Amino acid sequence: MTDSMSAGRQSIDEFLRQLALSAASPEILRRPIERALLSRGKRVRGILTLAAGEAAGGRPERLVAAAAAFEMIHTCSLILDDLPSMDDAALRRGEPTLHHVFGEDLAILAAVALLNHAYGLIASAHETLAPKRWPLTVVIQTVTRAVGWDGTIGGEAVDLHSDPAALDLKTLEYIHSRKTGTLFVAAAAVGAMLANAAPSTVSQLEAYAKNLGLAFQITDDILDEIGTTEEAGKDVRQDANRLTFVKLAGVEGARSIARELIETALNAIALTGKSAEPLRDLALMVRDRV
Amino acid sequence: MTDSMSAGRQSIDEFLRQLALSAASPEILRRPIERALLSRGKRVRGILTLAAGEAAGGRPERLVAAAAAFEMIHTCSLILDDLPSMDDAALRRGEPTLHHVFGEDLAILAAVALLNHAYGLIASAHETLAPKRWPLTVVIQTVTRAVGWDGTIGGEAVDLHSDPAALDLKTLEYIHSRKTGTLFVAAAAVGAMLANAAPSTVSQLEAYAKNLGLAFQITDDILDEIGTTEEAGKDVRQDANRLTFVKLAGVEGARSIARELIETALNAIALTGKSAEPLRDLALMVRDRV
Repeated sequence: MTDSMSAGRQSIDEFLRQLALSAASPEILRRPIERALLSRGKRVRGILTLAAGEAAGGRPERLVAAAAAFEMIHTCSLILDDLPSMDDAALRRGEPTLHHVFGEDLAILAAVALLNHAYGLIASAHETLAPKRWPLTVVIQTVTRAVGWDGTIGGEAVDLHSDPAALDLKTLEYIHSRKTGTLFVAAAAVGAMLANAAPSTVSQLEAYAKNLGLAFQITDDILDEIGTTEEAGKDVRQDANRLTFVKLAGVEGARSIARELIETALNAIALTGKSAEPLRDLALMVRDRV
Repeated sequence: MTDSMSAGRQSIDEFLRQLALSAASPEILRRPIERALLSRGKRVRGILTLAAGEAAGGRPERLVAAAAAFEMIHTCSLILDDLPSMDDAALRRGEPTLHHVFGEDLAILAAVALLNHAYGLIASAHETLAPKRWPLTVVIQTVTRAVGWDGTIGGEAVDLHSDPAALDLKTLEYIHSRKTGTLFVAAAAVGAMLANAAPSTVSQLEAYAKNLGLAFQITDDILDEIGTTEEAGKDVRQDANRLTFVKLAGVEGARSIARELIETALNAIALTGKSAEPLRDLALMVRDRV
């Protein structure tokens, strides 16, 4: 991780820490929310928001609230994903999953509260930055579509209910593009919009993020196959009943697809200047995970 | 129910029906979402949005999307509330609960998708109506606070985890004001804001809605105590382990509190003219439930 990435991650962590301290929630719910906000994530989506905003000429330190909002949405999806009725996972980010500590009811309520609060944060970030080209309604609808029933949530539903034995590339692409891709794309797009990027820049960054997201998902699948629980910070070999690119193409094949995707991501931002360096670093970091 | 209320309810139902038809969701998730959207609710919150907008000089037919959004948020809270880890309810609105039909995972994902989509609807309603006095950021933050960790979600968490034996009026007021009150207040406020109401009008309507919401919750508790499953459309005597105003004051005492709250609600809008008639009708309908 480069210095700029570490700095971004730290600023997001600090924002989430302050939010946990100031959240005016009843104690019974404050504790799971605090734990969820403080859990040590890689903050890839948040760093992507910062880096996309910077590539569009914005100042990353003004985009921290929006970056944190994407991390909260992502954390919401992880908490739900780990529930007994879904992946039934015991470990996440090296710690017991939220429902293991606080019970399913509070885990679900905390997760929904994170998603809900993210909308307020994005609205208030937009108010502060007031980007002329992008009214808040466009920003909100970008997030709604990315998260929604044909986005992350739709991808999760299909993922949970497809039969891995009935190997089907189209379904796999749907799952990956929705479950991971749409939120990566929105994280980049919203960072760029809040920095008042030109529409063509937003499109470039979306293309970058789409490929980065897919590569990231594939490297995750590879780590699930070859990594240890310690490295992954979560239960591994969880994908035994799921269809992944690793199952389709083997570890080496999946690795090579991930590298191609990273190349495509880098090409999408090839024409931008020095301000896109954090995006390049981020892509190389994903490539070098496996 | 008056003609205007029936018309409002029908327009909301029709909007939700169209949304169910057009929702571009994978089939596995489309079915629970459709069932949730089509479930026969009283639509009190949505009717409140329409009536508050009308009282503020707006045209209710332009507020249907926002009204539907509040119904979707409410439906989300019901689906989650019914889960095995929460109320473990078998019946809702006269039908098996969503997780009984589709499983817990899809019920949870459908619920979260409804909340998420509501934000997009509110953003797009604001874009259409473009109320000068109320930027979208204020509207979004109003919703976020109402739903959030110190709103509906916070109230639900406290409700699930308070000990009814340790009778405590402050806790009961917290639960009622959050679990029901904040969403009623936001439904009215957003209806008024989208109709470009003056701030003083929004405040009056919020006072009305706060009292109406509390009265509605109390009449719900009374129906749980004295009603049949058929009348209520859901399991009754579910509150045996919960603290309610009925337990605190008895059925007659609770009824009298509800009537006082309705009087207070009507007083809050006493100075407004003919356009507040739907609000008056709504208050009388709540009063006459029990």
